Amino acid sequence: MDTALLRKHLRIDAVDPKILRRIALHEAGHALMAHHLAPGSVRKIILTPTGGETQRTPLPAALTKADIEDELATLLAGRAAERLSLGSASSGSGGPQSSDLALATRLALDLETRLGLGGEGLTHTDATVPQLLTDQARRLRVHKHLQNAKAHAMEILEARQAELNALAKELISKREISGEEVKEDLSLR
Amino acid sequence: MDTALLRKHLRIDAVDPKILRRIALHEAGHALMAHHLAPGSVRKIILTPTGGETQRTPLPAALTKADIEDELATLLAGRAAERLSLGSASSGSGGPQSSDLALATRLALDLETRLGLGGEGLTHTDATVPQLLTDQARRLRVHKHLQNAKAHAMEILEARQAELNALAKELISKREISGEEVKEDLSLR
Amino acid sequence: MDTALLRKHLRIDAVDPKILRRIALHEAGHALMAHHLAPGSVRKIILTPTGGETQRTPLPAALTKADIEDELATLLAGRAAERLSLGSASSGSGGPQSSDLALATRLALDLETRLGLGGEGLTHTDATVPQLLTDQARRLRVHKHLQNAKAHAMEILEARQAELNALAKELISKREISGEEVKEDLSLR
Amino acid sequence: MDTALLRKHLRIDAVDPKILRRIALHEAGHALMAHHLAPGSVRKIILTPTGGETQRTPLPAALTKADIEDELATLLAGRAAERLSLGSASSGSGGPQSSDLALATRLALDLETRLGLGGEGLTHTDATVPQLLTDQARRLRVHKHLQNAKAHAMEILEARQAELNALAKELISKREISGEEVKEDLSLR
Amino acid sequence: MDTALLRKHLRIDAVDPKILRRIALHEAGHALMAHHLAPGSVRKIILTPTGGETQRTPLPAALTKADIEDELATLLAGRAAERLSLGSASSGSGGPQSSDLALATRLALDLETRLGLGGEGLTHTDATVPQLLTDQARRLRVHKHLQNAKAHAMEILEARQAELNALAKELISKREISGEEVKEDLSLR
Amino acid sequence: MDTALLRKHLRIDAVDPKILRRIALHEAGHALMAHHLAPGSVRKIILTPTGGETQRTPLPAALTKADIEDELATLLAGRAAERLSLGSASSGSGGPQSSDLALATRLALDLETRLGLGGEGLTHTDATVPQLLTDQARRLRVHKHLQNAKAHAMEILEARQAELNALAKELISKREISGEEVKEDLSLR
Repeated sequence: MDTALLRKHLRIDAVDPKILRRIALHEAGHALMAHHLAPGSVRKIILTPTGGETQRTPLPAALTKADIEDELATLLAGRAAERLSLGSASSGSGGPQSSDLALATRLALDLETRLGLGGEGLTHTDATVPQLLTDQARRLRVHKHLQNAKAHAMEILEARQAELNALAKELISKREISGEEVKEDLSLR
Repeated sequence: MDTALLRKHLRIDAVDPKILRRIALHEAGHALMAHHLAPGSVRKIILTPTGGETQRTPLPAALTKADIEDELATLLAGRAAERLSLGSASSGSGGPQSSDLALATRLALDLETRLGLGGEGLTHTDATVPQLLTDQARRLRVHKHLQNAKAHAMEILEARQAELNALAKELISKREISGEEVKEDLSLR
Repeated sequence: MDTALLRKHLRIDAVDPKILRRIALHEAGHALMAHHLAPGSVRKIILTPTGGETQRTPLPAALTKADIEDELATLLAGRAAERLSLGSASSGSGGPQSSDLALATRLALDLETRLGLGGEGLTHTDATVPQLLTDQARRLRVHKHLQNAKAHAMEILEARQAELNALAKELISKREISGEEVKEDLSLR
Repeated sequence: MDTALLRKHLRIDAVDPKILRRIALHEAGHALMAHHLAPGSVRKIILTPTGGETQRTPLPAALTKADIEDELATLLAGRAAERLSLGSASSGSGGPQSSDLALATRLALDLETRLGLGGEGLTHTDATVPQLLTDQARRLRVHKHLQNAKAHAMEILEARQAELNALAKELISKREISGEEVKEDLSLR
Repeated sequence: MDTALLRKHLRIDAVDPKILRRIALHEAGHALMAHHLAPGSVRKIILTPTGGETQRTPLPAALTKADIEDELATLLAGRAAERLSLGSASSGSGGPQSSDLALATRLALDLETRLGLGGEGLTHTDATVPQLLTDQARRLRVHKHLQNAKAHAMEILEARQAELNALAKELISKREISGEEVKEDLSLR
Repeated sequence: MDTALLRKHLRIDAVDPKILRRIALHEAGHALMAHHLAPGSVRKIILTPTGGETQRTPLPAALTKADIEDELATLLAGRAAERLSLGSASSGSGGPQSSDLALATRLALDLETRLGLGGEGLTHTDATVPQLLTDQARRLRVHKHLQNAKAHAMEILEARQAELNALAKELISKREISGEEVKEDLSLR
């Protein structure tokens, strides 16, 4: 018996197409924002039935405040793409310590408490995220950084929604797009 | 000597029928709510003298706020079923970390603090449940999510109380009901 | 030489009769309350020179709020019996984690914070007892549960003080009373 | 050469007589108070150049509030004796977890938080001493228990200062006094 | 095939010249400040594509408040040099426990809480940095120390900006400068 | 080649004479204060290029409040001597857990929280130094004890500044002074 038929019969791989489209849009959002801010920095986009990944070149050793604000926008661009094309965000950018929201929160906190680039001046502290967020004023500053980054991501993606949808569609059909292909696709327009 | 007779004499297995009915109603509540929200998502219902279990298909990888609110209602539907048919809830939905109330509280907190879908915006924090609940405003938001989910569950079950009681009765007599049987039983009406 | 005489000479076993009577009354209080609320639930009462124990049948898997309030009254009935017949309570119901007061406090806190049956609604939290008791409102609710349970125990025992004293006396002379004997003694009246 | 002479020459054992007298008075205070509250409860008093010890019979298994208040007074009687006969207390009753003050503080806290005999009713909590003392009202209640116990010890010892000094003197010369001797010495008057 | 060509083709070692210049200026700032405050105290300056290091002679065993203020200025001089010559600071002085900002914060806190040289008098405490910074008044004093040190560094470097740029340029071309060379370069003017 | 010449060439042992004088004055301050309060209690003074030590006879087993205040003054006399003869204190009395300031803070806290000799009455608590110092009133009492001890040390040393300087000078030349020598030097005047 044909394995593919058997798998279909057992409903294995019967991926929910709505979920797949959401993940593809999410990754396309990350890739489009990264390319916009640093052309050539996307190495590969991957899509699997339960998740996706956008691989990028490493960040330089020394970042200014503006560099960090760009990175925050890139981290939140996946979520922004979902909201833009589907009308709602999902749990997909949150959850574990390696999630978009966890990384963005940690980076915004670093800016404030470990990099000397935020409202707390040069004082450096190495507390945990929950400890750092008990300070109300700091919490508001982090909230502000994330709101600004989200607005930045939304603005960039809104102006490029056709490219976003096209990139997501390509990702659904190919399941993997190389950095070279991303560059070609996005640089043509 | 007959083992069954001996067991009866020693009162082993002499399960309190009131407790058994309560557990059956509790599981029937979970199953009915899950079926209502996602037909076909119940895999099996099991009843033992000291507990029960409703097995479901896994949740998708990306959940919207509405998906999570549905999941909260399903988690609280066991308790709602007890209250509806017996006039009181019991300790059966509470207790350990794997209990309905623990899972629902954790999920409502995730929505607020780790998934970017609640009142705290995109800020992500990984504190423990007791730490997270020391924040009064957050505590009220969690309380609100659980109250809404409970009301949702009550509303759905109230409109289907005959099916609820029938499903519980069937569970008491069979001790195990397959997903197919649940689907047939509940789809007929 | 006779061992019993030698022991007496060395004052081994010279148990303080006042302490022995207090422990006997304490256990008789637990047993009488348990029997009153659930006839047949006492399995055995034991008295030793330095302590006592009332063994009971296990509690059912699902408890309502009323069931838990009864259990609190049973836990505090030992202390209530001391106060009733001796005019004062003692340290005997307190101390370690397995003491009457520790178990009653834990159970009242469970009702509030882990079973969804108290003033905090359905929110579940798994903090330690000292952490949970830092919340002033919760502390007052726990205090109230324990006061009510104590009043309930006092009321039941006051109406049965003759039986209480008789059961304690029997325990001092026999050192161990079976569940059957408890049932016979207490059901005659 | 004579060892004793050599030791004297090297100033070994050259104990400060003022320190020795203070320690002797301290232990005599414990012993006198213990004997006053429970005649026969002192087993032995020992004096060494750097410390002392008053050994007593174990406490009964169940203690009333009054029993605990007596125990607090006995624990503080060493310090009271120093103050009475030398005009000042010393560090001798404080310091490690096994010191008079540590034991008295722990016992006063138990009375309040683990034995159901204090101002906090029946609520039981197992926090550490530093945690328990962060509650201002509890701290004042503990302070009050210790002040009352100190006043009780002072009152008893003041009325028996001649016996106190005689017992301390006897201890300095004998270095060890048996329970029988204590009973004889103190019961004659 | 030539390895160097292959590496170039693969873009390995393609260091961003803007990042390299920033790191060189940062290290030149440390070295210039250290030399200004203690001629001869710079042992070596090193530059790599991803970071740099300024090695100095060890500090003496006993430091006055003025010595510590000088050390704070030297720690912040790297960041000051970036701001002076590039218009912005970067994340390069922050981050791990061994970063300039972490060391400066720790030293300013030591001055206040462990060395008896700050606003808290002689009281010594060994808490962690996050714990120490929860005290608002102490946080402000630390902030003040760092602000003063930053202003001191800016003032010294501003008056020597030509030397700073020359030293950074030399470092970019040589990648390593010995203490002797630093002394010669900076003492000529 | 001569080792001494080689060492000189390599600048090993090239001790900063200013640092050496500061350390010598610091130790002379401890020794002079200890001798003033308890003649004969200094066993040895040692000076090394990076530190010093004043060895004393052990304290008695029972200390009054006055004894502890004397000990605090001796601990702070090193710092007082630096300030007196050099116009400034240094980091030399602070730093690790075994430093003068750490020991003095711990002793002042013991007086308050473990020895029953301070403003908190007889209540004993075993918290860590950082925990104990979060109590504002206690912090002020500790501050007061240290200020008084510092003033006491300053007063004694000011009246004996010639002896202080002479003892420091002798220590620099000899590097080690025995208790007998200290006694002779300081008792002559």
